[in-house]
Amino acid sequence: MTISHDTGYTFSIRLPIPFGDAERRVRAALQKEGFGILTEVDIQTAFREKLERSFRPYKILGACNPSLAYEALSSELEIGALLPCNVILYEEGGEVVVSAMDPEAVLSLVSRPEVEKIAGEVRGRLERALEQLARSREANE
Amino acid sequence: MTISHDTGYTFSIRLPIPFGDAERRVRAALQKEGFGILTEVDIQTAFREKLERSFRPYKILGACNPSLAYEALSSELEIGALLPCNVILYEEGGEVVVSAMDPEAVLSLVSRPEVEKIAGEVRGRLERALEQLARSREANE
Repeated sequence: MTISHDTGYTFSIRLPIPFGDAERRVRAALQKEGFGILTEVDIQTAFREKLERSFRPYKILGACNPSLAYEALSSELEIGALLPCNVILYEEGGEVVVSAMDPEAVLSLVSRPEVEKIAGEVRGRLERALEQLARSREANE
Repeated sequence: MTISHDTGYTFSIRLPIPFGDAERRVRAALQKEGFGILTEVDIQTAFREKLERSFRPYKILGACNPSLAYEALSSELEIGALLPCNVILYEEGGEVVVSAMDPEAVLSLVSRPEVEKIAGEVRGRLERALEQLARSREANE
């Protein structure tokens, strides 16, 4: 069970299950860590409808913990430009990659100690959600 | 007519008009520059419903130009974690602040020349949208 950090701005796991199942599990794991899903973008459908181009299954879910968002916005009003925290899912090599935006990387653009503290808390919760997903994968193997 | 850069990660204008009018104008200006609105978060309503706390009128609109998003995702698959480009609106001092996430600042987290080029193009379009809004404000004064 490992979370990989292949980019400097996301952390990821891989699930060897169908896309729809992965999405259901991701939503449940995020909910368990206190995140609601505020936004959803189906990239594959958007590219088909807008550009008539095919693309792999790919979704962007915008996760938000209301109390932490309230705290962040009360401390830095403009921070909404960097919210919610995205969790993406896409197919690759017969598996589903689940990656979370690293809030510590993104919120480092806001140089404010209160915000760094909140980013650390959000990151911890996202990591626990991904760890839980990876564990449930192992339980199925 | 000035765009201000008070934070390192957004650029903003102020409109002395009601919130609903500002939102309609922002959507029209973004559309004119080739952006669709893929996501929408009503922060005031979310905080009222989830936390029973009052907050100023505040919306996050997720803007996306499909062709540029396709190009960006084709060059860096994980970049969906940083999409769409948020444009926020909130009330402050009897006016509406309209701020766009600076794609050059945010996409600097992805160290890749192709992505920097796309970020520059997106930034140019967002700046033109805000300039147009500021001009329409002056025309009304």
